[in-house]
Amino acid sequence: MKLSANLTQLISSLRCLPGIGPKSAQRIAFHLLERDREGGTQLGHALTNAMNKVGHCQTCRTFCEEPICELCQNPKRIDSGLLCVVESPSDVLAIEQTAQFAGRYFVLMGHLSPLDGIGPNEIGLDELELQFAKGDIQEVILATNPTVEGETTAHYIAELCQKYQISASRIAHGVPVGGELDLVDGKTLAHAFNGRKVVAID
Amino acid sequence: MKLSANLTQLISSLRCLPGIGPKSAQRIAFHLLERDREGGTQLGHALTNAMNKVGHCQTCRTFCEEPICELCQNPKRIDSGLLCVVESPSDVLAIEQTAQFAGRYFVLMGHLSPLDGIGPNEIGLDELELQFAKGDIQEVILATNPTVEGETTAHYIAELCQKYQISASRIAHGVPVGGELDLVDGKTLAHAFNGRKVVAID
Ligand SMILES: [Zn+2]
Ligand SMILES: [Zn+2]
Repeated sequence: MKLSANLTQLISSLRCLPGIGPKSAQRIAFHLLERDREGGTQLGHALTNAMNKVGHCQTCRTFCEEPICELCQNPKRIDSGLLCVVESPSDVLAIEQTAQFAGRYFVLMGHLSPLDGIGPNEIGLDELELQFAKGDIQEVILATNPTVEGETTAHYIAELCQKYQISASRIAHGVPVGGELDLVDGKTLAHAFNGRKVVAID
Repeated sequence: MKLSANLTQLISSLRCLPGIGPKSAQRIAFHLLERDREGGTQLGHALTNAMNKVGHCQTCRTFCEEPICELCQNPKRIDSGLLCVVESPSDVLAIEQTAQFAGRYFVLMGHLSPLDGIGPNEIGLDELELQFAKGDIQEVILATNPTVEGETTAHYIAELCQKYQISASRIAHGVPVGGELDLVDGKTLAHAFNGRKVVAID
């Protein structure tokens, strides 16, 4: 027995969702068709719209549907002279939820990973260096993930900061080693911001 | 910080997926935008197509994109005189995978549940009775789920069968009580088919 073409296509397309295997994909497809066609239709449109229309801020690279995001347009954040570097847009969201940081962000959309061919330009460090060169950033807070790659990336950016005489600090206390930043609770993350330390370059 | 309109809509729409809470929905949305826009776009189209185009077979009510499904058009299955009644299209799929049954199906799309307002007509038993009246069905195999509602529904249909002098059997061995039919492995399900028993009406 063959399933119909559009049902087969739906089951196979559901596999793009993280953690969904073939059996789960089939159960989700049948669930939507049997019990929630309206929800399924709405999700279809929402996916099409989001994938087409959500781009990146030209300044900080976070998700944005305008050329420049709300945070990058905020004069208070620009005047703060503070720039927080994170790996992904979900980290911006997690940090914003602590309400402890009033500067700008720069979103790498990843981390340095030479073995996967991800060098400085692939994570926008050329763009970041242009921002450093303008001279209006006093301190860079390195909030990459506390993983080997995140630490390496933070160290690389700290060296760039030194070149432009910008102070570089690394968030420190409370972020569990080996974890992912956007899974940390707000209190821990706020603590990590307050306990940041200047990065020493050997 | 507000997320952009289409991103917010995507996160909220993902909640229609079974078992996806607000935090998972956000992680899935960010994952797709960061790492798999192509997959997300494809899934969007697949959902729209499936929700619009997958209907129900006019004869057996399983998922189908034509008026009558492949199984209902098969002369060998029609001539077998066997009809298997199941609760959902995924049960048809599970039984077909055992390759032990060569008759037709009737898919209730649910079970009797008077407290939820689901009576005989809501699960197509009026249509099923019209098929019984035609006189070409010799045996009905009741393969509803081994739950209270599934047993009640099977008993109700067995009574309908008696009215039309059609033999009614219930799949028996190996199906775990309280479970769901489409989660049972093929071997157990094949065994349950072979071990079916005639339903005694008091
Ligand atoms: Zn921005
Ligand atoms: Zn059919």
